[in-house]
Amino acid sequence: MADVSYTKQGSALLLVDPYNDFLSEGGKLWRPVEAVAREVGLLDNLRAVTAAARKKGIRIFFVPHHRWEPGDYERWAHPSPDQLASGKRQVFAKGTWGGEWHVDFLPQPDDVVIKEHWAQNGFANTDLDFQLKQHGVDRVILIGMLANTCIEATGRFAMELGYQVTLVKDATAAFSRDRMHAAHELNGPNYAHAILTTCELLAALAEVA
Amino acid sequence: MADVSYTKQGSALLLVDPYNDFLSEGGKLWRPVEAVAREVGLLDNLRAVTAAARKKGIRIFFVPHHRWEPGDYERWAHPSPDQLASGKRQVFAKGTWGGEWHVDFLPQPDDVVIKEHWAQNGFANTDLDFQLKQHGVDRVILIGMLANTCIEATGRFAMELGYQVTLVKDATAAFSRDRMHAAHELNGPNYAHAILTTCELLAALAEVA
Amino acid sequence: MADVSYTKQGSALLLVDPYNDFLSEGGKLWRPVEAVAREVGLLDNLRAVTAAARKKGIRIFFVPHHRWEPGDYERWAHPSPDQLASGKRQVFAKGTWGGEWHVDFLPQPDDVVIKEHWAQNGFANTDLDFQLKQHGVDRVILIGMLANTCIEATGRFAMELGYQVTLVKDATAAFSRDRMHAAHELNGPNYAHAILTTCELLAALAEVA
Amino acid sequence: MADVSYTKQGSALLLVDPYNDFLSEGGKLWRPVEAVAREVGLLDNLRAVTAAARKKGIRIFFVPHHRWEPGDYERWAHPSPDQLASGKRQVFAKGTWGGEWHVDFLPQPDDVVIKEHWAQNGFANTDLDFQLKQHGVDRVILIGMLANTCIEATGRFAMELGYQVTLVKDATAAFSRDRMHAAHELNGPNYAHAILTTCELLAALAEVA
Repeated sequence: MADVSYTKQGSALLLVDPYNDFLSEGGKLWRPVEAVAREVGLLDNLRAVTAAARKKGIRIFFVPHHRWEPGDYERWAHPSPDQLASGKRQVFAKGTWGGEWHVDFLPQPDDVVIKEHWAQNGFANTDLDFQLKQHGVDRVILIGMLANTCIEATGRFAMELGYQVTLVKDATAAFSRDRMHAAHELNGPNYAHAILTTCELLAALAEVA
Repeated sequence: MADVSYTKQGSALLLVDPYNDFLSEGGKLWRPVEAVAREVGLLDNLRAVTAAARKKGIRIFFVPHHRWEPGDYERWAHPSPDQLASGKRQVFAKGTWGGEWHVDFLPQPDDVVIKEHWAQNGFANTDLDFQLKQHGVDRVILIGMLANTCIEATGRFAMELGYQVTLVKDATAAFSRDRMHAAHELNGPNYAHAILTTCELLAALAEVA
Repeated sequence: MADVSYTKQGSALLLVDPYNDFLSEGGKLWRPVEAVAREVGLLDNLRAVTAAARKKGIRIFFVPHHRWEPGDYERWAHPSPDQLASGKRQVFAKGTWGGEWHVDFLPQPDDVVIKEHWAQNGFANTDLDFQLKQHGVDRVILIGMLANTCIEATGRFAMELGYQVTLVKDATAAFSRDRMHAAHELNGPNYAHAILTTCELLAALAEVA
Repeated sequence: MADVSYTKQGSALLLVDPYNDFLSEGGKLWRPVEAVAREVGLLDNLRAVTAAARKKGIRIFFVPHHRWEPGDYERWAHPSPDQLASGKRQVFAKGTWGGEWHVDFLPQPDDVVIKEHWAQNGFANTDLDFQLKQHGVDRVILIGMLANTCIEATGRFAMELGYQVTLVKDATAAFSRDRMHAAHELNGPNYAHAILTTCELLAALAEVA
């Protein structure tokens, strides 16, 4: 694993899909992620990492999934299996509680909210790369949901675009333990420059001048 | 899983990284993939699928990894772990046997050879999307190496770009069985429109007019 | 110039920035474009082309510029001269009449509204390419504002992505005649597959089955 | 115009298409550019700017157009007018003198040679953005050919990607004076952060620490 470091200007925290449907009791996808989320201490870790980033002046970029609306995907040639499934359940539906930010993860004035991504990759069809460049960022730390879908797709592509990539394996969750294992033990080591625990990340952030 | 179909004009076969270093006895990465490759019948399946595609007039796009050269990655800010590791071993070195196509998978006059990708995603920093468009393709079938790295990165992004994606789980290989499982059972179903065996794909291609 | 044709499925009309600030008396940019707009018959031509497209079932994609909001560009490393200038004048300001669609160009249920672009190129940092692919489009007709900025930037890049590009030289306008000349006589012929008058386009669309 | 500055690490010189066919007596496109090239002092200015960049340690990125090969564009759905025209004349033909670098502009060991672009935009379908990121560049200076085609297409898109863009109006040329005027007086001011003479650029580079 490469020797990574973080800087106030050059680093960014990418907070992926912090919606009620993912993170809150009663959310449409809370039940399937609950076991892993509780096991790793997800909510506490997300709170700790976002607080540490704010304290150090490391900017937070919200990287949100498309909020479902009536008519979505209906006339598309090739909607993905995930789009069809989440469309059917109206996950992250626009104008509903499930599609709102979890109350502990609301954008603050200095944060940047990226355009919604249609699938899993927060760079695809959005302004994420552009906004990172305009803010002088070349290092990204990814937290949020899910480890093997949006986090992995965004992290893989961040590397393809030339960014330094840090994964935080207990500040994310997935529908099963083997999906976590795939994300952090099998695939992550091929593209991520660092795969840390929240504890390790907090220690590294404490060093930022 | 979506109901997929193939057409002579709209479909393309993406043959990823068919280098000697991956596919031939004595190749630098043959030993780590050999067990899985033999178990799934990789070489025979690659031969069968490419032959069937040619017979039906479905165009083959070669999607090659960067061939290593001296100096690679040395002045880069954030080379990936894979780039550093394969650079150290000079995998797919330019001008060597390891960086040549396996003798059974040589480009033919009607094939298209895409620019080399620097990491895992055959679309990133190349003309793959452009060439697919110029050839009227909206459906891609991915075969070659490795299931959880280049094939997965390219397939995930093909979906993000709007293509219909087919994976062929015994026309690829990986460094371990659990990497194959991650690619085809855990991650593939989230983005791929079809995950077939070679046998199933050959049957579907036989239907192409 | 290439021999172009249009089809119901494969063609799309890209309507760029049909905001009150550009197209309506009292709009912030109406005065600088008024002379050219009146000379070419802009509004009537935009109405005629959009009506013809709807009649033939050719889908309309709205390609909107970013709507200005307080704070825009303030912390960016390299805002463009246009961004700084239009930010200062609050052009297309969110929640104001100037940033609303001109009343004759409101999205209809079958239209697609693309994410807002930050600068001039409707593909950059948006889902335009993705939505065109999901709707099976490989040919784009560009109308709207301005001939040498957003229309040209979007048309140039459409060609780079593999699309067939049609410009309509009297269904756009610019701040001066020489900018129109530059767009349609000097630069357009290098990248556009057809540069038509509204009259010629309507005749071609009348042939669409 | 914005207040721009240059730094050794963050700035790059993009040298676009320095082929014999463009820059040398007897090149296929030399005759049409000769009048403007002589008027602005093109060759001397290109030599002065590249020498100054090398002296200051500002890295040079070669941004080359596709070298023509037999079969090019033949099976493409939508080749551009420029591709068809230059294909017919076999401009920049691979393996010929016309497709070689002008003898005064040969890549040196520290330079980066980007993948060939298919049309006008040096970022499209290439690794230019990726290589700029891996070298820590956020400011680009564009010189070479032609002012209103490859230079303009690359400069416009550099801005869309978040880079600071400098044009050098006498270190480029075009097929006519009005094309130069269009590039530097009509279009450039909308997207470029600075439009300098060679003299002004050399003075600015002399300040680089």
